[in-house]
Amino acid sequence: MINYFTEEASVEAVNGRIGEAARPRLKVVMESLVQHLHAFVKDVHLTQEEWEIAIEFLTKTGQICSGERQEYILLSDVLGVSMLVDAINNRRPPGATENTVFGPFHVADAPVRANGDTICLDGKGESCLFEGRVLDLEGNPIAGACVDVWSDNAEGFYDVQQPDVQPKWNNRGRFMSEADGSYSFVGIKPVSYPIPDDGPVGKMLGALGRHPYRPAHMHFLVTAPGFQKLVTHTFVGGDTYLESDAVFGVKKSLIAPFERLEGDKTLWRSTYDFVLVPETFEGPF
Amino acid sequence: MINYFTEEASVEAVNGRIGEAARPRLKVVMESLVQHLHAFVKDVHLTQEEWEIAIEFLTKTGQICSGERQEYILLSDVLGVSMLVDAINNRRPPGATENTVFGPFHVADAPVRANGDTICLDGKGESCLFEGRVLDLEGNPIAGACVDVWSDNAEGFYDVQQPDVQPKWNNRGRFMSEADGSYSFVGIKPVSYPIPDDGPVGKMLGALGRHPYRPAHMHFLVTAPGFQKLVTHTFVGGDTYLESDAVFGVKKSLIAPFERLEGDKTLWRSTYDFVLVPETFEGPF
Repeated sequence: MINYFTEEASVEAVNGRIGEAARPRLKVVMESLVQHLHAFVKDVHLTQEEWEIAIEFLTKTGQICSGERQEYILLSDVLGVSMLVDAINNRRPPGATENTVFGPFHVADAPVRANGDTICLDGKGESCLFEGRVLDLEGNPIAGACVDVWSDNAEGFYDVQQPDVQPKWNNRGRFMSEADGSYSFVGIKPVSYPIPDDGPVGKMLGALGRHPYRPAHMHFLVTAPGFQKLVTHTFVGGDTYLESDAVFGVKKSLIAPFERLEGDKTLWRSTYDFVLVPETFEGPF
Repeated sequence: MINYFTEEASVEAVNGRIGEAARPRLKVVMESLVQHLHAFVKDVHLTQEEWEIAIEFLTKTGQICSGERQEYILLSDVLGVSMLVDAINNRRPPGATENTVFGPFHVADAPVRANGDTICLDGKGESCLFEGRVLDLEGNPIAGACVDVWSDNAEGFYDVQQPDVQPKWNNRGRFMSEADGSYSFVGIKPVSYPIPDDGPVGKMLGALGRHPYRPAHMHFLVTAPGFQKLVTHTFVGGDTYLESDAVFGVKKSLIAPFERLEGDKTLWRSTYDFVLVPETFEGPF
């Protein structure tokens, strides 16, 4: 039977064209993509004019990308796709620290510093002591874990966004956990900031009545031999945007206490323990 | 209740963020898009690495676009989305000529010529007489209909693809139907050709084991006062790619006879009647 395209059998017409040469996984992914894409077009009865707007939006989103800007990652972020991919690929048992999005601002090989050292090199912002322990699922300390941290500065920019203004490695560093699993460093209490919103994605957010802000957060990448990599943030409790993160990164368990200290140069203290999952762990997921 | 993002309620988290400012139709379209996009990610359990490949593909597809090239329309075409949008927006009653994709090669205001005139200005290719009538649903002739036609040349290129090689308006023209609804012109028997396949979309087709060819076709845009616009092609019966058009444009009813003539300068004849639907027609669609 000849498989001409019809509105009713549109999915079968397109997927029926996939040849023997296609890798099995590519076939699975593309068949599902076509099925859902066609269902979307049919569900909303997409008009020719709306299709043209979509073509223009997708084109502009690609064309604004550069070495310093990735508008398609932003699009994925604001549609919740980045967080969904992260969630699906990092299912963990109860008690383990949850993952959240990696973000575009990590830099590998930050300076390794002694516990208690500061990462704030520009002297701006409200200083904050970050401390806690790295533990396994049974509560045993993990010694020698690498706690790689990064945050924005007091004006809401990462050092890589302002290479001419901020000192290199400003608000970044790596700390190795002690024998009792403890880590500590001095940074600043991070501040909320908008994702870049002067491109197609920002315009879309505006049309949807959404703001571009992320609630204040400290990034953590925690690794230890024998354990799964943990990519997460701790969020500043009480932040205005906690319930409306533009990229949906907030999980309740990641909201950390920030305690005001009295009579000290250091103004705040945030205590948070990280619980890692064994590399060999395979849950019922 | 605070609507933090979870894998299970990912769609609700994202769509719950749409504000009062969003136009109702935009809200409908985006809610459906997010629902289907998340369902796709969940169905295939998209990996982080696959997500990165997708981001790169979408970025490159935008970046290859220029004034002369629209790779996102190609992507829409090869995924059957262009045909689906066309089908949904041009449902017609039995007996009416079916629509197919407009394509990127139409040029407005082609020369108006007398019936029987030729449109082939470069003298290449096998000449073909195209003739037929423009009719209404009851079979009555429609006089004064504009039959706007365009095709590739004998090498498979439209004039606008080769502005330095082909004469302007080569294989293009407009013809007005006579009192009996008839039209006729001499062109060439069109040839099959590949869509541009040296970009991301071509690479994707290759990975899917698909070829980039379109079967040979003549484009028609038929308009008449009081009738719905008809955008269609007639396809050359017997073409190798009729059952595997890279953009899914073939409908069985659009495959036209091409009859070999003997003892004549004109080598072929293709007869096809177009049946238009009244502007006021509203079917049970």
